[in-house]
Parts: sequence; C-alpha cells; structure tokens
Amino acid sequence: MTSPDTLTYERFRELKLHLDMSRGKPAPEQLDLSRALIETARETGHLARDGFDCRNYGLPAGLPEARELGASLLGVPAAQVIAAGNSSLELMHDALVFALLHGVPVGEGSGAPWRAQGEIAFLCPAPGYDRHFQICEALGVRMIAVPMRDDGPDMDAVEQLVRADASIKGIWCVPLYSNPTGAIFSGDVVRRLASMPTAAPDFRLFWDDAYRFHHLGDERLTTLDALQACTEAGHADRLLMFASLSKVTFAGGALAWFAASPHNVAWWQRHTAVRSIGPDKLNQLRHVRFVRDRATLEALMEQHRALLRPKFDAVDAVFRARLSRVPGVRWNVPRGGYFISLYAPSGCARRTVELAALAGLILTPAGAAFPYGVDPQDSHLRIAPSYPSLEDVRLAAEGIALSLLRAIEEGCSAPS
Amino acid sequence: MTSPDTLTYERFRELKLHLDMSRGKPAPEQLDLSRALIETARETGHLARDGFDCRNYGLPAGLPEARELGASLLGVPAAQVIAAGNSSLELMHDALVFALLHGVPVGEGSGAPWRAQGEIAFLCPAPGYDRHFQICEALGVRMIAVPMRDDGPDMDAVEQLVRADASIKGIWCVPLYSNPTGAIFSGDVVRRLASMPTAAPDFRLFWDDAYRFHHLGDERLTTLDALQACTEAGHADRLLMFASLSKVTFAGGALAWFAASPHNVAWWQRHTAVRSIGPDKLNQLRHVRFVRDRATLEALMEQHRALLRPKFDAVDAVFRARLSRVPGVRWNVPRGGYFISLYAPSGCARRTVELAALAGLILTPAGAAFPYGVDPQDSHLRIAPSYPSLEDVRLAAEGIALSLLRAIEEGCSAPS
Repeated sequence: MTSPDTLTYERFRELKLHLDMSRGKPAPEQLDLSRALIETARETGHLARDGFDCRNYGLPAGLPEARELGASLLGVPAAQVIAAGNSSLELMHDALVFALLHGVPVGEGSGAPWRAQGEIAFLCPAPGYDRHFQICEALGVRMIAVPMRDDGPDMDAVEQLVRADASIKGIWCVPLYSNPTGAIFSGDVVRRLASMPTAAPDFRLFWDDAYRFHHLGDERLTTLDALQACTEAGHADRLLMFASLSKVTFAGGALAWFAASPHNVAWWQRHTAVRSIGPDKLNQLRHVRFVRDRATLEALMEQHRALLRPKFDAVDAVFRARLSRVPGVRWNVPRGGYFISLYAPSGCARRTVELAALAGLILTPAGAAFPYGVDPQDSHLRIAPSYPSLEDVRLAAEGIALSLLRAIEEGCSAPS
Repeated sequence: MTSPDTLTYERFRELKLHLDMSRGKPAPEQLDLSRALIETARETGHLARDGFDCRNYGLPAGLPEARELGASLLGVPAAQVIAAGNSSLELMHDALVFALLHGVPVGEGSGAPWRAQGEIAFLCPAPGYDRHFQICEALGVRMIAVPMRDDGPDMDAVEQLVRADASIKGIWCVPLYSNPTGAIFSGDVVRRLASMPTAAPDFRLFWDDAYRFHHLGDERLTTLDALQACTEAGHADRLLMFASLSKVTFAGGALAWFAASPHNVAWWQRHTAVRSIGPDKLNQLRHVRFVRDRATLEALMEQHRALLRPKFDAVDAVFRARLSRVPGVRWNVPRGGYFISLYAPSGCARRTVELAALAGLILTPAGAAFPYGVDPQDSHLRIAPSYPSLEDVRLAAEGIALSLLRAIEEGCSAPS
C-alpha cells in the first residue's frame, strides 16, 4: 500500500476500493464470539426451566427466564419486562403506532389516541439515530430538533418546549454512548427529563438503551436509573425503555426487551396480544442459556471491546495525523457505542460523502443524523468503524480524511 | 375409566379432569416431527447458499432461499414473496395498520389512508377466526358478518355489500379448511372474490392461507390460485396473501410469508423498512434446510395427519354415538385444518361451554368465531382436538357431548 505520507485523494481513488462504513454492523469476528449459541442448540433443546415446551404457542410476554435476564440487565423488576422478538426497533415503532391509534396510559385511565389530538410532535436530539427519525417521518409525527450536548439533550431547550406545547408527545433518547455522538446523559439530564413539567399529560420518553453494555473505554460507564428517576418524580408512566442483544450476540438474530411501569406494560400486553401469537421462545431459550447473567454478558462485551477498540483507535490516529490542524474540523473519541462523529467545516459534509463515494468508500449519507435528513450546518459525518477489518478501517479513515481535505480545497460546493 | 354407556354428566364432573380444547395447538408428538430443526442447528450453521452471514444485519425481505421456498409452496414468484418473522398474524395486523395509516396501492399511485376515509369496515365470514376479528375490533374497523357456507362466504351477500358500500375495504378469507368450519372455497367463490366490482377502489382480500398443506382426509385438496384469478380479473393488487410454517414445524417458532402483487410487495417493503432491521435469518436458514421443498413438506404433513386424524375421528365417533339423534345438533367432519364445528340447538352454546368448564373441560368461548364475540344463534362451538392425547380427546368429546345434552335438558338458559 502507498505510504500514508504520499497518499493523496487521487491515489486513494486509484486504489479502486469497495469499503462500506455506513452502518453500525458487527464484524464477523464479533459474531464468532457467540458461536456457542448455534453450536449448543441441540443441547439447549426446547424445554424451559419449568418444563415449558418452547416449540409451542404460549407466553406472549416472553419466556420467564428471558424476562428475568432482561430484568437483571436493565435493573427493572421482571414483571415489568417483556421479552420479545429479534429487534428493539420494531418495539419502538409499534409503541408509537399503539400510541397513535389507542393513546397511552394516563393515571388509571388512558389518554386519547395521539392521532385524535391533531398534529403531534417529537423532540429529536440531533445529531441522533436516523432510524428513530424515519419512524417519526413515516408515521407523520412532526420532528423538532434540539441540540445534543456531550451530556445529553440541551435541557433548557427541551424543558421550554415541552412546558409550552401539548402537541409534543415524546423525545427520543439514547442515554449511553448515544448514536452517533457518543453522548452520555448526565444524572442531572436524566433527572430533568424525569421531572420536567410537560404540557402533554401523555408525554413519553422513548428510551433506547441500545449501548448499555457497549463500552470502548476502560471504564464501564452507566447512566442514572431512568425508571427510578421517573418514579421518584411522580412520573412512573413517562418512560418506555427498549433494549436488545443484537450487538451482543447476533445482529437481528437475538432478542429485544420492552420495560416500563406496570401501567405501560399492561398497555403493551393489551395491544400486542391482538397482534401476535408471541415471540420465538426457542431463540429466547438459547439466549438465556448462553448469555446467562450480567457477569457472563460483561465478559462477552469485554471480548467485543478487544475487537472494536483498535478500530476506533485507528480512526482517531489517522484523523489526528491528517486533520488535527485543519480549522473547523473536529471529531469525538467515543467511550462506547458504535460510531464516531466527525464534524467538517460548515457546508462540507455532503461533498465529503460524495468524494468518498467516488473513491469507493460508502459513508452514511450526510444529514442522516438529523430530522428529515437535513443537517442545517452540513457539517456532521457519521463514521461506523465496526464492520471492516482493522486494515480496511485504517485505509477508510485515510480516505475519509482525504475526501474531507479535498472538499475543503474545493470550497465545499455541496450538491444541492 | 367409566364405560361410555354409563357415563353421565355428573360422573364426568366427578372425574375432576383438566382438559383444554380451546386453541389449535399442535401436540408434543407433532412438534417432535421437526426435532431435526434443533438437532442439526450446528451443522446448518450461519452461512446462506451464497455465503451471506445470517448472523448479521441485512436482507430485510428475508433470506432469498426462504423467499424461494415460500414461492414454491404458495405458487407465487419469489420476487413477490417476503419471508418474515415467526407469526403470520403479525403480518396481517401490520398490513391492516399500514393500510389505516398510509393507504394501499391503487393503480400506479396510492389510495388515501383508510383512517382518513371515515369509518371503514371489513366483511367477516362467520363462523371465522377469532383473532382476525380481534384485530378489526382493536383497530376500530367495523365488522360486517356474512354467512360462511361449505364452499366459502355467501357470495351473493358479499357482492351486494361491496358493490354498494365504499367503506368496505376488505374481507377475511381462510380459503382452505377454514377456521373453524373447515369450509373449502370453491373455484367459483375464488373467481367471484377476484372479479367482483367493489365500490372501494382500494379493496383488499386478506387471504390467510393457514391450512394450505394441513390435510386430514385422504385427498390433498387445493383451492384455485387466487393471485392468478385476481390478475386475470384485472385486480392483481386486490390480494394480500399470508402463510406460515407455525403448524408445520414449531408453533410460533417458524417463519411467515407475505405474498402479493409487485405493487403490494413494494408497499410492504416500504413500510416494513421503517419498522424493522429485518427478520431472524438464522431461523429462516434452519427452516430452509429442514423443510427443503414441497415434497419434503408434504411428507412431513403426512406424518402430522397420521397423528391428527385419529383424534378427529375419535371426536366424530363419540358425537355419532351420543348426538346423532339429537334434534338441532350437527357437526362437521373436516377434511383438513385444526377444528371441528359443533352446532348446538339455538341458545345452547354458551351454557354448554359453561357446563364443560364446571367439569374441568376448557372450550373456546361460545361466540368467539363471530364478530364482536356474538353468535346470534348462540349455537356454534369450536372444538380443537389437536393438543390432548388421543385418550384425552375421546374423554373430552364425551364431556362435550354430555355437557351439550345437559344444557338441552336444562332448556339451555344461557347466562346473559
């Protein structure tokens, strides 16, 4: 390979690479860490702890031991945890659909269906997770961007908005190692979210705890217990929590959890009972036997970290070498999660993505981390270093840096 | 056990049984037929035919070979088949939700969201599948009962209703061995459903092909190709087809298919892409390797038949012995599917279920097979003989017959 010192954008293009850094996909070596899930399926069989036959209908709230595993990981009583299918995104989508069509619990009763309340809106801390925003867009929920800080959403803005506007029914939150900025919600932010007055009595925190155990740094960071904070603030029903094992075992082949107050769990069960004959309990059983408990999960996540950390370090090293003295350019060194956010000078992100694509390097579309796909500064780039090999990550980071530098040289005439 | 000749309702109650004949659950011996699905999971591994890693994200429409398997079983091109999660009920629910929120394809465009068109209605051939009706009820879709005949819904009634009323957006159909009457849609009925003029341009047949391979008789009956019939009638977009392997391999642990016209499949993909990161492809891979092809599936279904047929025969034998000369009582001998319909004299069904429950025998609630749970004749009883052992099925059939006879003796004062 060409030495970094002499590598230019043109030379990079000549390498005719095909690298995809667009999505937070685990690498094959990470998936191999859970190979026992497949290899011991025969020994696991089909009988649950109490003899229940997981091959048959029943248990719409999930296998009891899968609910208990979720409870121990999420710090919520098992009765308040639903063990579901293979994707927490589905649960978030369905929670929003149920709220639109049926309303959500308010006190001992139910609020009106959100659809029946005119146009409703969600707060979208940005940069944020593109798939959250796509759900809102598809379901006709107006998105209001609020700035994302290192310690969570800008709470002054959030509090002011929700106090004034009853059409604001929720906010998307990824409390730990937020996608894509790596933000970590401070205790103060969690408490303010839990306790803030809202004009809407049926306001909900959509709490996507996607990266709860996905540490990259040496410390296993945590965020404040949101359900407890809500309960203490007298808003136990405010929180809907979502999590999955998709980036612990198999991406899209694991299980997901919904956790919330007893009112919300009863609401969830009422509406999902109509929809489904229940989750795949065989896969839940395999996961319970493999993941076992929090200590086993944490040991597994340590192995993930050993594979992921060098890739994140490689991106940082390349960026430091190429971009550290470039005015208007900065990036974060995340302490967990799956993404690095690179900030280009205003007006340069889309052109950078375009130049990278011309060089065979697929990045997340510029603007994807913002509501309606529009980054008002055209500055943010989301880098997903997990999937390619370490060598390819290094090369891709070079390509990103060279594409950004070329965009700046060009004056960043982003296509409109 | 007491000899059948001397068994009375009182003696039956004294047996203090606990038998559940309420749901169409496969028996453990049926589930054992697919034990290789679990036992060969290790050999199946994670690599699809083309080397795709089923442990990772991707393929939102399902594994190509799982779509092809569905195509070969359903007689639809693979490009028009989506291989999804573990429950076809979920697909039906979501199809109705997408139609309510977004509308369905009409010509090259899209109709208005059903929700935006005022109150909408579905035709519900009755007796029918209780879970279909529960979906309508939960989603606020008005249900209009139409009589179910042995050859499908009363088409004179259906045609008259859909021609006159644009608020009627769909009809529930289980074309073969319909739940719970065992009706088999005739070619004429399928053609009339496919070709009938409808006031609603966005009318849909919700085609739940749940028992396509679930024969009990010696003949493998089929129904007319509904997609072809619709296409020939110029209504290719009218049909939404649903099927699953839940009663072929594992109940709730298998995979489900959605099949329809290219317009409808594009519509489905557009809305599910927002909801989900895709199905569990590992389970799809295991199923493809195990079920393989139509011949393999039919051989497996023959084994199911060998286990199920004696149970259905046992119920019929008991009913013939005890009920054949009772005025106003009749039942069907289904040629496939999971249910027997027993018709009590008017006003006797609920009391029969109640008397059976007092004797430890759980039946499907009377009325469950009708919209809103109301059987206007209070006559229909749904019997699900699949799950208990043959001995227990025989005993339960005695209990049902004795409960019915006692209800008639009492004058059938059903609780209101």
